[in-house]
Amino acid sequence: MNFRFVINQLGLLLLVLSGGLLSLALFYFIWTSVVGHDVNPHARLALLISGVLGALVSGGAWFGTRKGCGQLGRREALLLVAAAWLLGAALAALPYFLWAQLHFDDATAHPFRSFADCYFEAMSGLTTTGATVLTDIEAIPPSLLMWRAFTQWLGGLGIVVMFVAVLPTVGLGGKRLFFVEAPGPTTEGLQPHIRQTARVLLGIYLALTAAQILALLAAGLTVFDSICHTFTTVATAGFSTQSASVGGYQSQAVEIIVGVFMVLGAVNFGLYFALVRGKFKNPLRDPELRTYLGLLFVGSAMVTVWLVGHPITTTTGEITDGSLGSAIRYGVFNVVAIGTTTGYATADTNTWPFPAKAVLVIMMFIGGSAGSTAGGVKVIRIWIAFKVMLSEIEHVFRPNVVRTVRVGNTIIHDDLKLATVSYLLGIVVLFAIGSLIVMVLEQSFGQGCDYPTAASASLACLCTIGPGLARVGAIENYGWMTPSTKIVLAVLMALGRLEVFAIIVLFTPRFWRAH
Amino acid sequence: MNFRFVINQLGLLLLVLSGGLLSLALFYFIWTSVVGHDVNPHARLALLISGVLGALVSGGAWFGTRKGCGQLGRREALLLVAAAWLLGAALAALPYFLWAQLHFDDATAHPFRSFADCYFEAMSGLTTTGATVLTDIEAIPPSLLMWRAFTQWLGGLGIVVMFVAVLPTVGLGGKRLFFVEAPGPTTEGLQPHIRQTARVLLGIYLALTAAQILALLAAGLTVFDSICHTFTTVATAGFSTQSASVGGYQSQAVEIIVGVFMVLGAVNFGLYFALVRGKFKNPLRDPELRTYLGLLFVGSAMVTVWLVGHPITTTTGEITDGSLGSAIRYGVFNVVAIGTTTGYATADTNTWPFPAKAVLVIMMFIGGSAGSTAGGVKVIRIWIAFKVMLSEIEHVFRPNVVRTVRVGNTIIHDDLKLATVSYLLGIVVLFAIGSLIVMVLEQSFGQGCDYPTAASASLACLCTIGPGLARVGAIENYGWMTPSTKIVLAVLMALGRLEVFAIIVLFTPRFWRAH
Repeated sequence: MNFRFVINQLGLLLLVLSGGLLSLALFYFIWTSVVGHDVNPHARLALLISGVLGALVSGGAWFGTRKGCGQLGRREALLLVAAAWLLGAALAALPYFLWAQLHFDDATAHPFRSFADCYFEAMSGLTTTGATVLTDIEAIPPSLLMWRAFTQWLGGLGIVVMFVAVLPTVGLGGKRLFFVEAPGPTTEGLQPHIRQTARVLLGIYLALTAAQILALLAAGLTVFDSICHTFTTVATAGFSTQSASVGGYQSQAVEIIVGVFMVLGAVNFGLYFALVRGKFKNPLRDPELRTYLGLLFVGSAMVTVWLVGHPITTTTGEITDGSLGSAIRYGVFNVVAIGTTTGYATADTNTWPFPAKAVLVIMMFIGGSAGSTAGGVKVIRIWIAFKVMLSEIEHVFRPNVVRTVRVGNTIIHDDLKLATVSYLLGIVVLFAIGSLIVMVLEQSFGQGCDYPTAASASLACLCTIGPGLARVGAIENYGWMTPSTKIVLAVLMALGRLEVFAIIVLFTPRFWRAH
Repeated sequence: MNFRFVINQLGLLLLVLSGGLLSLALFYFIWTSVVGHDVNPHARLALLISGVLGALVSGGAWFGTRKGCGQLGRREALLLVAAAWLLGAALAALPYFLWAQLHFDDATAHPFRSFADCYFEAMSGLTTTGATVLTDIEAIPPSLLMWRAFTQWLGGLGIVVMFVAVLPTVGLGGKRLFFVEAPGPTTEGLQPHIRQTARVLLGIYLALTAAQILALLAAGLTVFDSICHTFTTVATAGFSTQSASVGGYQSQAVEIIVGVFMVLGAVNFGLYFALVRGKFKNPLRDPELRTYLGLLFVGSAMVTVWLVGHPITTTTGEITDGSLGSAIRYGVFNVVAIGTTTGYATADTNTWPFPAKAVLVIMMFIGGSAGSTAGGVKVIRIWIAFKVMLSEIEHVFRPNVVRTVRVGNTIIHDDLKLATVSYLLGIVVLFAIGSLIVMVLEQSFGQGCDYPTAASASLACLCTIGPGLARVGAIENYGWMTPSTKIVLAVLMALGRLEVFAIIVLFTPRFWRAH
């Protein structure tokens, strides 16, 4: 293991995060001097201190290891990714923690109860989950809300760059799951290719961001709200600046814009890559995209049907009539919000009839497309597993018929079959273990916990959705849980976000042994 | 598909079932004339009519197709197994239904509410599940309780013979999962081998049965109770003659005897086969047996630890002290009852602390050994999947290291890896679908249903345990559910019992197409 190189690259990544902190602090210092009054000095200060601390440590790590760099191997890549998210969340949590320490005399009064809460919130940001510990989001200074949204934007970008541009070059992550023409890297001349691919992906991400900000401004949102919600939409992440989430605007235009960009964020970025390179047919032919859009449509339609005739409680507490119109409006938005693993809400899905909730849970599990900012197990894996199941069934009564398993025109080889089915089974096991630990921790150290809450919390974190059901539902939050539970859920977020393996390998002794 | 041959063999199997009905009816007619008074004429009559009807139809089917028999192919074997259980349950349900029709003037008064209830009870019998729709078991005539226990004994025997002697000869079922020396059949000269193997297995089964009856008699049980409980213990099935299950005897001797024979029933019958052939070392070396006994020990120990200090509610309604003694007594028995998929109870496990219940649910899922009368996914599959997962994790950071996956000394080949992991994932999916359907059906047509009830009902039927948790817990029953739910659960029992595929293939068009 080339620790030196890992520390070097990790330093670089955390330097970017520190840069974000410093830029934001700087902006708010300037902004205060322009508008002339000082609303939240402690928040600004917290951002500044965190940024300086982060820059010093990460800059030092990077500078101290700049010589004798090497190649990025598989194990180095895995360790880098895991460390980037686990340590990045600690750095990203710092401003929340410092602000609370500086601002509140009474420790019990502040919205972030402990460092575990801050870490949970920061991990929820960087993993684009969107689960929050905050009961009253409006009580948090705008500068910290902007930071909170920015962590999601950065997390989404990080995931896309890692899983589309970097990891495939060492044979990890996305590549085996991509069926569009591979977006760039071959084994020859990796470095320039990675940079170029990453640059194009950044461009696409920036373009989506700019487009949505403009759209939301046109829909009447403030600059602050537009930026914050855009940051958390294109990353399919889901932090909002209001406790009522997107439902707080009560604007159908905003819901439509957000809805469209959630879907755009949950699409394989390799497809945009193909578009940028002028290959317009690839996206249309992509089997995963077609299936995914089909799933969102079927899911929305099913939920809408079940909602007709049921009064819907919105996130602002109003109760709608049971008309077809409101069933479509609230059904489609919330299904898309869950199906893209964003986790915004306009309605209290807890009050929905059971079949509608079941559809939401299934959509949580499936998630978005591979190579996107969305979580879940990914559509392509569900599809491969489905085909494998069918072929296994036929194998029972026709053992001698060898039928190749295909997705689109791509033949799925035996090792990918086993990897996919094992991955899905592994996710189910992790989900079960997560639910179990949440139950035990809450019953031992907290106020107790019911099954739907524990199970949906585990699923919503593992699949990077954010809100679950019951006591962690759309209009609830994770604040009431014990610090130990929050740490466990933060680990689940990292597991789900980094496709499980990057975290799991850290626990295997063989990973750490010399090659 | 050689339908003629399938019908012929099916006729033979149902003829055995009818023979059981007729023998029982005959015995009770003689018994009545001996003791001189007539307790339950309707029950006797119901058994007789069912037996005559069954014998006529199945005998006719067998006689009409006796010419032009063929070889048992894979598809024929699958269809035969599926049809035997699905139609066998209908025949086995007949006496319950006829008795209720003959005996009760008021249709709402009788313990079996509908034919769906009778079918559920009969399927629960033949699949050795042990789930019941009866609220007051003591209200059922002894002759019918004897029939109910006998269906489980016959079901257990059928499973052992099918999965150890018959199906492996066509390359199905047990063979791929057996790691002890194959118990007999090779591709040459199938017929004599099958008969011989089946005969030895019958002998083993009869020996276990005789041993337990004698032990229970010695412990003070009546002849009737000894026979009924033995029938449902060696089959790891779980029907009792009392609503309080085995707990009703309040006898530690009975609990120990039943406990030992439950474990003996959940052991691979191939091991007994090896013992009979003088190969005494095989069982000791069997990796599945060792792991299984280890699991039962660890599970019992964990539950016992959690029970210490908790008063335990027994199935007779008494409340014990929280002493170590009663924790061991009730902890071990109920863990073994669940872990062997028998489903007897001496305590109301619903009132146990969550971690103890979680252990029970995990044991339900795992089940017993392959080639035994126990259900669940089987220990060997869990083990293979665990090894596959480990090798997949290592594969991520060491793609070029090819490590063979072994269980004991046996190398697990790629196709078995995929089959095993797919099977486990399939069971999870079936469990989820089952829970979903139970929820929807009960909410639509019944009194509504909570998540733990729906989930544990689905799991307890799929893994052929019997009782689940919450409203289908150890001291509850399935009687309150709607008939549609009962049919779904009966199908789940058949799916779980017949290793899924025998039922699933019936729904694939390719299965029915000519070769």
